[in-house]
Amino acid sequence: MIGRLAIVGLGLLGGSVAKAARADSLAREIVGIGRNPTTLAPALAEGAVDRVTTELREGLSGADMIVLATPVATLERLMPAVWQAAPPETLITDVGSTKAAIVRVAEALSAKRPQDFVGSHPMAGSNLSGFAVSRADLFRSATIIVTPTEATVPDAAKRVTQFWEAAGGRVVTMDPASHDRAVAAISHLPHLVADALVAAVARMDPQFFDVAARGFKDTTRIAASSPTVWREIFEENRDALAEAVAAFRSTLDDLELLLRSGDAARIEAELERIRVIRERLR
Amino acid sequence: MIGRLAIVGLGLLGGSVAKAARADSLAREIVGIGRNPTTLAPALAEGAVDRVTTELREGLSGADMIVLATPVATLERLMPAVWQAAPPETLITDVGSTKAAIVRVAEALSAKRPQDFVGSHPMAGSNLSGFAVSRADLFRSATIIVTPTEATVPDAAKRVTQFWEAAGGRVVTMDPASHDRAVAAISHLPHLVADALVAAVARMDPQFFDVAARGFKDTTRIAASSPTVWREIFEENRDALAEAVAAFRSTLDDLELLLRSGDAARIEAELERIRVIRERLR
Repeated sequence: MIGRLAIVGLGLLGGSVAKAARADSLAREIVGIGRNPTTLAPALAEGAVDRVTTELREGLSGADMIVLATPVATLERLMPAVWQAAPPETLITDVGSTKAAIVRVAEALSAKRPQDFVGSHPMAGSNLSGFAVSRADLFRSATIIVTPTEATVPDAAKRVTQFWEAAGGRVVTMDPASHDRAVAAISHLPHLVADALVAAVARMDPQFFDVAARGFKDTTRIAASSPTVWREIFEENRDALAEAVAAFRSTLDDLELLLRSGDAARIEAELERIRVIRERLR
Repeated sequence: MIGRLAIVGLGLLGGSVAKAARADSLAREIVGIGRNPTTLAPALAEGAVDRVTTELREGLSGADMIVLATPVATLERLMPAVWQAAPPETLITDVGSTKAAIVRVAEALSAKRPQDFVGSHPMAGSNLSGFAVSRADLFRSATIIVTPTEATVPDAAKRVTQFWEAAGGRVVTMDPASHDRAVAAISHLPHLVADALVAAVARMDPQFFDVAARGFKDTTRIAASSPTVWREIFEENRDALAEAVAAFRSTLDDLELLLRSGDAARIEAELERIRVIRERLR
């Protein structure tokens, strides 16, 4: 059990960390830190946290574990202050959806003032955001990627893994660069593709939407997400996303060529290969 | 109410037409026609049809309405025999997922031996196929596109519309070419894109699938469909699909360029425009 858990940012993810920690008794005291008192108030009123503050130094004082849950762009600006304000060798993790840049910043900061940092990325979310949609069971059965490096204190990775597992998550360990390539492929690319599908149909003829059935809605569901959050994610993971888009584009070209060949046996074999891969994901 | 309803092909769609017609008392007698007696037996045993036969002429004799529900490729080969075997000026529709080619064949046949044909496309289905997964409520709340032309007997379009509405569907009328462009955009393109997404990730690194969350699964759900059915659909709607793929490709290129510009305001404005369009589909 953690003594004092400090959470910076009480949106969907930070709020859910607080609620999960409360529900599963993972910490004796939970402190919520945010910029705006009015967005902190509901967390306090609901009892998800014991205390709220807009002062980073006050909020991190005496913390045994810190979860950084602000948007990624804010996070990197905030980290130097966190490293200064936190007690030395505090267990710190974040919930950012890209990892290489954040881990790089964290390790540069820890070289000067050691903190037990390890990056996390809970693959849980929603196309909604904010504390109002946070839930104690957000991480239950979710995949949480934890990204230790050679510089990580081994015990830090172990304790962060235990924290997510105690909140119901399934932890997968990857190095930060592999994480960014993986999420570019299975999260950021599908998002951009869903955006392009919606925009392409709108460009062809908006009346076509009148006959959109479940398949189109499933395929494009993630296109109804926060523009600010996704602009930041696309920007933050620019290089890995470019690689994934290139792989997708050449795969689509190959598939189209194969369809044009009219070779029924080869076409069906390829569609069957894809079907089997997709079936395994269920 | 229809006197004798004959259904050619008792798979997912044909079986569901039979069950819906039975459940909603749309016909006094329902005849199931298929190639294989063993696949017809369950429909008879369950009471979805009153009679089954492998003989087209016998099955269509005295029919007041005929629903053609075989795969599209089989359908075009079968239609000349249907036009000959059906009583003259019988109400005929089909459930094929492309329309221009089928309607062209039907109108050429009707020029020689008049039948009251109008094409239909129920936008209902599943990634499963066969009578075993057919359901009386498959068309309930589904969009059914009906595709009359200048050559269509007006009463035929009206009666087919009434039939689908009685089965619970929402009927949208389009000309056959617009139908094919619309379904290329909102059904066949998303399918091909989902296939390409799965194949692209497999090509990048199959281990990435280990961290695939709900977004990826939603976006690629339709990639787990019958290779034979989809090979035929892609082939049948080749031209409209090529147009849709071209529109998608250039939209994706534009989006990627916009992301690379780093212009946060313009990127967020475009993502917001897309979000609003997608939200409206709910």
